Amino acid sequence: MTLLRTHLGGALRTARLAQSRSLREVAKSARVSLGYLSEVERGQKEPSSELLNSICEALGITLPSLLADVTHSLRAAETPTLTVARDAA
Amino acid sequence: MTLLRTHLGGALRTARLAQSRSLREVAKSARVSLGYLSEVERGQKEPSSELLNSICEALGITLPSLLADVTHSLRAAETPTLTVARDAA
Repeated sequence: MTLLRTHLGGALRTARLAQSRSLREVAKSARVSLGYLSEVERGQKEPSSELLNSICEALGITLPSLLADVTHSLRAAETPTLTVARDAA
Repeated sequence: MTLLRTHLGGALRTARLAQSRSLREVAKSARVSLGYLSEVERGQKEPSSELLNSICEALGITLPSLLADVTHSLRAAETPTLTVARDAA
């Protein structure tokens, strides 16, 4: 089943890795525990809206920009055939 | 503060009202309580990813489509000046 928290976590992880930053550094900046951020990134925990804002702020990204990435990721997951067809063309 | 659950709830409420459906009907179809759905729509409760999927299914909308609406709503909320300027033009 496609779950919002899986794609949300993936998008947060992608944003963090694109900045070559560690879980520890971003967690500290967002004032959340390293374990919490790790669980959120792996889609194992639903972040509250408040903590999601803290994480976005720590990453220097906006909530709508993150959501746009999540929407894209969800759409890609829902249309595997089309994605393959586009890649092959 | 801009919160994801506020805009998520608003987008769900907009989708339900666009179909002229009652809270009771959609809650029953999604197998959630009327009180829970009402709290989610008002941004007072964070829906779990699983229940969000149930509500989307009950409304006949997809998760990425809902998220695209939420992204739009968040962007509109973050740029009030631009929105006013566009309306006035």
